[in-house]
Amino acid sequence: MTIYDLIIIGGGPAGITAGIYATRQTLKTLLITKEFGGQMAKKAVDIENWPGETNISGQQLVEKFVNHLKAQKDIEIKSQKVEKITKELNDFVVFTNEDKFRSLAVIIATGADPIKLNVSGEKEFLGKGVSYCATCDGPLFKDKKIAVIGGGNAGLETAIFMTNYAEKIYILEFNNVLKADQFNQNEVKKIKKIEIILNAKTEEIKGDKFVNSLIYRDLFTNELKTLAVDGVFIEIGAKPATDMVEGLVDFNEKKEIIVEFETFQTKTPGLFAVGDANIGKYKQIVAAAGEGCKAALAAYEYIKSLKNKNFV
Amino acid sequence: MTIYDLIIIGGGPAGITAGIYATRQTLKTLLITKEFGGQMAKKAVDIENWPGETNISGQQLVEKFVNHLKAQKDIEIKSQKVEKITKELNDFVVFTNEDKFRSLAVIIATGADPIKLNVSGEKEFLGKGVSYCATCDGPLFKDKKIAVIGGGNAGLETAIFMTNYAEKIYILEFNNVLKADQFNQNEVKKIKKIEIILNAKTEEIKGDKFVNSLIYRDLFTNELKTLAVDGVFIEIGAKPATDMVEGLVDFNEKKEIIVEFETFQTKTPGLFAVGDANIGKYKQIVAAAGEGCKAALAAYEYIKSLKNKNFV
Repeated sequence: MTIYDLIIIGGGPAGITAGIYATRQTLKTLLITKEFGGQMAKKAVDIENWPGETNISGQQLVEKFVNHLKAQKDIEIKSQKVEKITKELNDFVVFTNEDKFRSLAVIIATGADPIKLNVSGEKEFLGKGVSYCATCDGPLFKDKKIAVIGGGNAGLETAIFMTNYAEKIYILEFNNVLKADQFNQNEVKKIKKIEIILNAKTEEIKGDKFVNSLIYRDLFTNELKTLAVDGVFIEIGAKPATDMVEGLVDFNEKKEIIVEFETFQTKTPGLFAVGDANIGKYKQIVAAAGEGCKAALAAYEYIKSLKNKNFV
Repeated sequence: MTIYDLIIIGGGPAGITAGIYATRQTLKTLLITKEFGGQMAKKAVDIENWPGETNISGQQLVEKFVNHLKAQKDIEIKSQKVEKITKELNDFVVFTNEDKFRSLAVIIATGADPIKLNVSGEKEFLGKGVSYCATCDGPLFKDKKIAVIGGGNAGLETAIFMTNYAEKIYILEFNNVLKADQFNQNEVKKIKKIEIILNAKTEEIKGDKFVNSLIYRDLFTNELKTLAVDGVFIEIGAKPATDMVEGLVDFNEKKEIIVEFETFQTKTPGLFAVGDANIGKYKQIVAAAGEGCKAALAAYEYIKSLKNKNFV
């Protein structure tokens, strides 16, 4: 069985950057991902904060990243789903839905998945008005009324993007303030067809064949209120995809992996975690890419020292 | 006197990324730099490790960064040299060669300057065969013999680049091994006109109007030896430009600024240091950019909390 120097799990900006750096360091590298781009690929608005690109769509930026990765002639890429990782002496064993692979080091760059509201109607109307991805589904809501759940950056960016289609957009925020950054708040305030509802707890999504209304509780008055909407975009955060390293790492309460912030190594030597999968609070594309670079260079040093010690 | 929210010092990838993020956070931001691009602008070989750009010249990448920065309509940019920074209560005072400016937070992104060999002839023949910048001066050495001093990445990349021009290239390394990464070492080994000389201490650069030879001591035999060369490229590292924050921060032995690695804050609240100016060991463009992003977001939080406390 081939023993790779490094296995990178994930195909977002952190994983791709780690792949570019690892192959330039001539590490024998396998990158495993079911899809490329991570949350970048699902961005509701154009990306304006990747340095050097004043304005670029998520899909275009993903394409640039993937082309760059694939230009590294020594990278191996497999489209499989990683289920479990174990460590036996100095080797990691990565179990996927189809196979297993061994390596001396592993970088977890698995990102995060959207958090569900867990209200009645959410599952039933998925793809029939309920969406976690405005980029994918936005155009279906031309001249419709929609609600966006969540007053963070993702929610406000989704609302701004949806002004391209929808005739009316409600933003429902559970707390009594928006959490989004000032830039996005200022943008939203300029747009008349966006209405912000604070202290709003979504209770139910209703409809017939498609969504036709949303019921929320006004936490200030405790009244139930109904909004007539044709679509509901849920943007209340993301859950890191970190179950596969259970037992090898420590987690915080959000199940983000605890790392040391210079090398991004976890408590298990040779196991690194970068991007949205770790505890870092600044979840940005360029931050994730920088972490991928650093972890790849740290993995290179780790692997070199392991080989020099003749352990392998 | 205007009080800025944030002053960023430096125009390399870290400073520019900080500028983009700070203005998107609607911070009132001043960026002070004498030149844009930092070491990126002086790269001897094309850049192949900035994610998304398989191959791009340093100058082209600098241009993309600067265009992006200048597209932020609220950024102020001044071309001055920062000499000293002090803190008075909650305000930083930034003294330049022409003026002084006040702000609530400061990000140091001043990068690093080339280290000199300090041998006879180095100063005398600067621009007459001695260079710290192969991108700038490389074409002058068509069909000539040159020496590159330094066996790290910068030295090997310079040597590889100079194969476009020079007919013979010596790499002189003081130690008995090269420090460059494996990728660069493999590249260099493929090129016949590059010759590596280990254990070589450069003693003197000689010439008439222009450089015509270099004298080094073979540290193994202790003999002095002469190489007939027309050019000497000095690539032995860089000294961080951090004198201006003396008294406000702690330094390591290389005069790099000690920071906390998540926010990049120094021991002085509101004062951050990113990129090659700090103690981080991974000095890469995308790593510096990621740090600029994180420090700008951390500065935003710092400034917001300062304003919320009504201190300002």
